[in-house]
Amino acid sequence: MALVAGVEQVRTVPQASLDPLSRLLKSDLEGVNRLILERMQSPVALIPRLASHIVAGGGKRLRPMLTLGCARMCGYRGDRHIALAAAVEFIHTATLLHDDVVDASDLRRGRDTANAVWGNKPAVLVGDFLFSRSFELMVADGSLRVLEILSRASAIIAEGEVMQLMTTGNTATTEADYLAVIQSKTAELFAAASRIGAVLAERLPKEEEALDRFGRNLGTAFQLVDDMLDFSARQSELGKSVGDDFRDGKVTLPVLLAFSRGDEDERGFWRRTLEELDQQPGDLERAIHLVECRGALAETLARARTYAAAATRALAPFADGPERRALIAAAAFAGDRRF
Amino acid sequence: MALVAGVEQVRTVPQASLDPLSRLLKSDLEGVNRLILERMQSPVALIPRLASHIVAGGGKRLRPMLTLGCARMCGYRGDRHIALAAAVEFIHTATLLHDDVVDASDLRRGRDTANAVWGNKPAVLVGDFLFSRSFELMVADGSLRVLEILSRASAIIAEGEVMQLMTTGNTATTEADYLAVIQSKTAELFAAASRIGAVLAERLPKEEEALDRFGRNLGTAFQLVDDMLDFSARQSELGKSVGDDFRDGKVTLPVLLAFSRGDEDERGFWRRTLEELDQQPGDLERAIHLVECRGALAETLARARTYAAAATRALAPFADGPERRALIAAAAFAGDRRF
Repeated sequence: MALVAGVEQVRTVPQASLDPLSRLLKSDLEGVNRLILERMQSPVALIPRLASHIVAGGGKRLRPMLTLGCARMCGYRGDRHIALAAAVEFIHTATLLHDDVVDASDLRRGRDTANAVWGNKPAVLVGDFLFSRSFELMVADGSLRVLEILSRASAIIAEGEVMQLMTTGNTATTEADYLAVIQSKTAELFAAASRIGAVLAERLPKEEEALDRFGRNLGTAFQLVDDMLDFSARQSELGKSVGDDFRDGKVTLPVLLAFSRGDEDERGFWRRTLEELDQQPGDLERAIHLVECRGALAETLARARTYAAAATRALAPFADGPERRALIAAAAFAGDRRF
Repeated sequence: MALVAGVEQVRTVPQASLDPLSRLLKSDLEGVNRLILERMQSPVALIPRLASHIVAGGGKRLRPMLTLGCARMCGYRGDRHIALAAAVEFIHTATLLHDDVVDASDLRRGRDTANAVWGNKPAVLVGDFLFSRSFELMVADGSLRVLEILSRASAIIAEGEVMQLMTTGNTATTEADYLAVIQSKTAELFAAASRIGAVLAERLPKEEEALDRFGRNLGTAFQLVDDMLDFSARQSELGKSVGDDFRDGKVTLPVLLAFSRGDEDERGFWRRTLEELDQQPGDLERAIHLVECRGALAETLARARTYAAAATRALAPFADGPERRALIAAAAFAGDRRF
């Protein structure tokens, strides 16, 4: 007789890690990586060269893992999830390449992105290529329902990215604005990636919706932590990059909270550095100090954990098993990661 | 008894004009324009604002007209061609927005593109939005065959655009390189737009292929004339923009021909202006003079007419009628237009 763990039991000891999911999906993930390498090829040599800088750059493969893990948890036993997970990763990669496009005014803040190395235009065009390849993979799979989910998600991601431009440099951005941005630009693809797992297994609409909710909450938690880590002194000590959002003038939750809790002098600091983008040596350090001492980082992290818990709750309709436990560990990771 | 005109007869008096096609498709085109306006809406206000700069900017709507006209010529009587024509135009518009992305080094050559007005990043993201919308339209239509044709075409367009970057500033570009670029970046979408007309009408594979050939040859003719017009003194007299390709260092057929037919001094001129992008006042005028006196413009136009004639020949399997005659006039226009 199989032991079915109660939701409470798994919620009280959530292991915050991607490892269980990676281990469980090892051979599926290898299939995804092979397909990604195969489908990013082109007779136009610059395309695989530039794409490999970002695709093969060894991201966490978190989004494709959600497709694979959700499909497996739903009892799917075929191999269509491999191609669809690769399609999800291609959409993500195209988004990254386009998100890194810079205007002339940004160029002084050169970074080691594909755009900085090869220029905007090749990065944009290779993004288009990968985006098209993503649709080719979905078309070859043949599910109009999956195509519907991912084409809609792609449009919403673009809307989220444009909304983000509107909030950049704007300290009047509200928490609702910020949430709308991250729900669209980030959480939407997590939701779609998870949902198609249920579509593959031909599960009920309410199970599709449960997985959409799982992915959406997990994605929101993931982005909140991402925005928190950009101001993390500990990240900086570990030699990891911090301050990218600050240099871009992005108004994320840590900034919003520190701004609303700060005094006049602090608000002046945020306006100068983010609205006017007038940044001096020492400003990033002061920003890190302010978000820390105003409790903005702790609050951001607390909210991330709330979303991660909601992701876990969304898995309640599914029977316990290694996949479900691994997905819960992934949700905990999204809300509690240090990298 | 209907009079069926022989191919020779129509080829000898081809009216070079888009008017017959525009007239014939007037109400279909109005439907396409309505749908375009409707589907470019978004709660994110910058999206319709920027999109309307380019979508509603009143292009020729040549590509969607090919979808509409080919579907009608094939006897299609439904209304699915409206949405698919809009999808084709959205792909074209997204490509335009991304093609205008500039790197810092290009900014001194500011032009009145969406990118120049709003910056690279909004233009790229709105392009992504329109591209996603295009797939949403196709998914709602529900034909996997159409999705296959247009997702593949999109990948090839991106390859062509990247190939074009490789030939830019390179006077060693061969005619074969140049043809590969324009076949991919331009002719592929014309081919796909035309082919789906046959798909809608459920015509035979060989008729699909005939329409693909029609669109591909027409698109090649169109791009050849486009590249010729960029050096046209007459365009300049009409107050139209010339020299965009020259300023970008693009190595198009007029340049290739003038380079290979030129003397050492002339080759030095092309190398300085296109490879080193060292351009002085008077250089564009000299370039226009050189492509003219070396017969490069006349030769480019002659080739365009050859492709236009091949487009017309590709329509041989189809019965004569107003749609076929209008498509033949459009092919003649592509090879003989002055704007």
